[in-house]
Amino acid sequence: MNSHAARPQTAAPHTTASPPAPTLAVRRLAIDTWRENVVYLHRECEVYRAEGFQALSKVEVRANGQCILATVNVVDDARIVGCQELGLSEEAFAQLGVEDGHTVAISQAEPPASIAALFRKMNGERLGREEFGAIVGDIAAHRYSKIELTAFVVACNRAELDREEVYFLTEAMVATGRRLDWHEPLVVDKHCIGGIPGNRTSMLVVPIVAAHGLLCPKTSSRAITSPAGTADTMEVLAKVELPFDDMAEIVRTHRGCLAWGGTADLSPADDVLISVERPLAIDSPGQMVASILSKKIAAGSTHLVLDIPIGPTAKVRSMPEAQRLRRLFEYVAQRLRLSLDVVITDGRQPVGFGVGPMLEARDVMRVLENDPRAPNDLRQKALRLAGRLIECDPDIRGGDGFAIARDILDSGRALARMNAIIAAQGSQAFDPDHPALGPLTFEVRAVAAGVVTGIDNLQIARIARLAGAPKVRGAGLDLLRKLGDPVKPGDSLYRVHAGFGADLAFARQASERASGYTIGHADEVPHVFVEF
Amino acid sequence: MNSHAARPQTAAPHTTASPPAPTLAVRRLAIDTWRENVVYLHRECEVYRAEGFQALSKVEVRANGQCILATVNVVDDARIVGCQELGLSEEAFAQLGVEDGHTVAISQAEPPASIAALFRKMNGERLGREEFGAIVGDIAAHRYSKIELTAFVVACNRAELDREEVYFLTEAMVATGRRLDWHEPLVVDKHCIGGIPGNRTSMLVVPIVAAHGLLCPKTSSRAITSPAGTADTMEVLAKVELPFDDMAEIVRTHRGCLAWGGTADLSPADDVLISVERPLAIDSPGQMVASILSKKIAAGSTHLVLDIPIGPTAKVRSMPEAQRLRRLFEYVAQRLRLSLDVVITDGRQPVGFGVGPMLEARDVMRVLENDPRAPNDLRQKALRLAGRLIECDPDIRGGDGFAIARDILDSGRALARMNAIIAAQGSQAFDPDHPALGPLTFEVRAVAAGVVTGIDNLQIARIARLAGAPKVRGAGLDLLRKLGDPVKPGDSLYRVHAGFGADLAFARQASERASGYTIGHADEVPHVFVEF
Repeated sequence: MNSHAARPQTAAPHTTASPPAPTLAVRRLAIDTWRENVVYLHRECEVYRAEGFQALSKVEVRANGQCILATVNVVDDARIVGCQELGLSEEAFAQLGVEDGHTVAISQAEPPASIAALFRKMNGERLGREEFGAIVGDIAAHRYSKIELTAFVVACNRAELDREEVYFLTEAMVATGRRLDWHEPLVVDKHCIGGIPGNRTSMLVVPIVAAHGLLCPKTSSRAITSPAGTADTMEVLAKVELPFDDMAEIVRTHRGCLAWGGTADLSPADDVLISVERPLAIDSPGQMVASILSKKIAAGSTHLVLDIPIGPTAKVRSMPEAQRLRRLFEYVAQRLRLSLDVVITDGRQPVGFGVGPMLEARDVMRVLENDPRAPNDLRQKALRLAGRLIECDPDIRGGDGFAIARDILDSGRALARMNAIIAAQGSQAFDPDHPALGPLTFEVRAVAAGVVTGIDNLQIARIARLAGAPKVRGAGLDLLRKLGDPVKPGDSLYRVHAGFGADLAFARQASERASGYTIGHADEVPHVFVEF
Repeated sequence: MNSHAARPQTAAPHTTASPPAPTLAVRRLAIDTWRENVVYLHRECEVYRAEGFQALSKVEVRANGQCILATVNVVDDARIVGCQELGLSEEAFAQLGVEDGHTVAISQAEPPASIAALFRKMNGERLGREEFGAIVGDIAAHRYSKIELTAFVVACNRAELDREEVYFLTEAMVATGRRLDWHEPLVVDKHCIGGIPGNRTSMLVVPIVAAHGLLCPKTSSRAITSPAGTADTMEVLAKVELPFDDMAEIVRTHRGCLAWGGTADLSPADDVLISVERPLAIDSPGQMVASILSKKIAAGSTHLVLDIPIGPTAKVRSMPEAQRLRRLFEYVAQRLRLSLDVVITDGRQPVGFGVGPMLEARDVMRVLENDPRAPNDLRQKALRLAGRLIECDPDIRGGDGFAIARDILDSGRALARMNAIIAAQGSQAFDPDHPALGPLTFEVRAVAAGVVTGIDNLQIARIARLAGAPKVRGAGLDLLRKLGDPVKPGDSLYRVHAGFGADLAFARQASERASGYTIGHADEVPHVFVEF
């Protein structure tokens, strides 16, 4: 075999001078393109043919040794971007990190190096450790277009990943991010797979287990498609965006914190993948396991209690499905040497009364204050999860955790610990007796007598979001009836709070289409068999 | 069973006045967002909370009875969009069709009605006729986000569609577009599945079969990821964007035309799907069959000759694969009552010498003019395909087509017919002896002695695109050696033409990385066994 690749050479009669150094001046445009880098090139640009770049999925933008990938929009208005300028969206400008007016060059982006592995996965092949590493690395570095991201997520859906692949994916996601080390043998955390409005147990579990003395550095997330995440709700009470060193200091002093995870840069690939998983309502077991466990490992947890709610409108709808998911979580956790305790819980309806950051903060504070108006389901669920975490303590006998947690809550020690954490993070003015709820309201009422036989988690979440949650903190739903409650015609089922007229109208339209409540006979209330 | 959905009612003490009519003034922004509607909302907008809309994949924009879907970008600069304005990208402005300053309202877009069917396909279920109809209808109406489109395409990849589903998909794609009726019993067309640079046989087949008297209203496409489509190449010679009535008149007069298919609005869903299929290099058999046959049925064809090239860098790489694809095409064509003749051809290398609109137009005209410099492979392939189409004529005996086609070409009747079609469509100045090729050039030369044993279709196409094709019509590659040609060190393999310095530099970098040519021993030239 004597094959040679041919090499290019310049042909004398056709040679031209080397091309002009193709540079433009950076212009920062005050356009927020929401998790996507966009650059703006004038159609009559003097150094690049704008249209040639537009059909491409991505271009490379280079300045001062930095390089970002971006989508090109073509502009015909020199007031937006001139012929010798390159406009950058806010995200692109922040990522590139050079000053306005700095010279910048662009070129066609090479496809990400892992694209061949992506195509193999799309064709149904099994991938190995190195391939997952390459794909996840490219995703974390924002080298995938939205189309490529979606292709990866859909190709991994449908139980295409075997459990070994889920382990490789999780491991790769851990490897791309920062990994914390608390220098303690026991670092505990709790997590819920999500999908149940009002499920703010973390804000109770953290102060309880921290008061018991366990280290619980809880980093939590903001809502993406739900009406409130733990970070959104905690933000009603305290600052949650803390520099990492401040958070670490709070954890050392108080044994716990409730901060936003985004500042710690844990599992950055997961943050990117979520942007396409959520609109497709994709929550395949493999992706859920990789997403949750990678963040916990990266945060330095050694012990995790995982909450899997079951119900007709929960993410998991049957016990066999919950058991399959449990086994996958356990397999991957064991490979990563994370001690995992799965708790299957009642997910038939929202937890507590409030849905939306301020309404949920009110419920949480009432539980901590042992207020008689506190929602009992939230209290009981938090005690149960906190009890399981406390049993990670080698000095505690199995079965004693619940009573210890209840004692910490009833005695006011959980409230005291929560107040200390709030003060340390930077407290916000909040009065749980008079929360500043959205002033525009309407109520949804029963039209027939009977018993509440169904509350649709998805529709309740949707109405709360339309009402403005989580961006408008006082917006959301206050549930006045729960499953099994008897109602007469005209009784209020829930009250909607909004801060803006347009939001109130959107929420009203949605509740008119489907209120989320079903009224029927007492024997139609669905049963759920979960240990307690 | 006595269940009642609850209905909302306004609670007296909390009632507020009905929300203000939430309208903004339309502002047309000269930003070309490339096949995606974008609207721009000021962060301090007085009637909508801009941030609440941004996390959504789409919003509905309504004005004057029209409604479009769009993505929201948030703006912090009142010079781009004011607090009481809604900025619209060029595409969004054109689709909405109202004047600058017109009042406009926005709201959260409901998910497309077919989304449940999409989720079922993502879960691997088989879909029926109605479900494909709903999905394709939503896609054609631009109701799918890029993420949803990608999910559909990836879920249908991997041979997930059985042949009945491919038929349903094809039928649904026909149903969403315009369907032409030529009021003749025999309407012929030819098509290639693509992937081979320089393969401009349509521009020879159409004048030959039209000269024979068959009706051949060829609508062709522009390049998306290739260096030239038939429409791009034809545009070097004549206008291709014709009002439908003009095109129909030309077809009636001359029995053929070579116009751009986009103006006839055939299979609009396919145009949308292509925007995500191309970046993923997805060409699954099901999608290929639906895409090609839906356009042919919509164009009113009764007889189709289909070219499937095989080669190491072609779309189809083996004969068994080609045969499977042939059977799928035949099954769907038969269900749709289209007479189909599949021809499997040599796809080991580009066809002809030129790659790029003007270089390919030169090759085509040389074949028509019986110029001794004409590429023989292009001539032979065109005669073979034209011959097969001529045999659709019931008066022609099977096997006689090739000789008839050759006679039409050799006698100058094909050239005369082409010139008549060019004149009717509106001729452009073009001299095939002195084409206005891109003035900036370089040559790629052999570094060793031997024989050309491989030409990579994909790399040749990529270099031609980087050089500026098809937007710069004179840009592209002129292949000076083909498979089996002997070379000495320093011999030119191909010449690159560009119109811009930056393009020349990009093409040079790519050819330095991989020239696309392999030089070796004569016995290493791959064989291909196709009928001739």
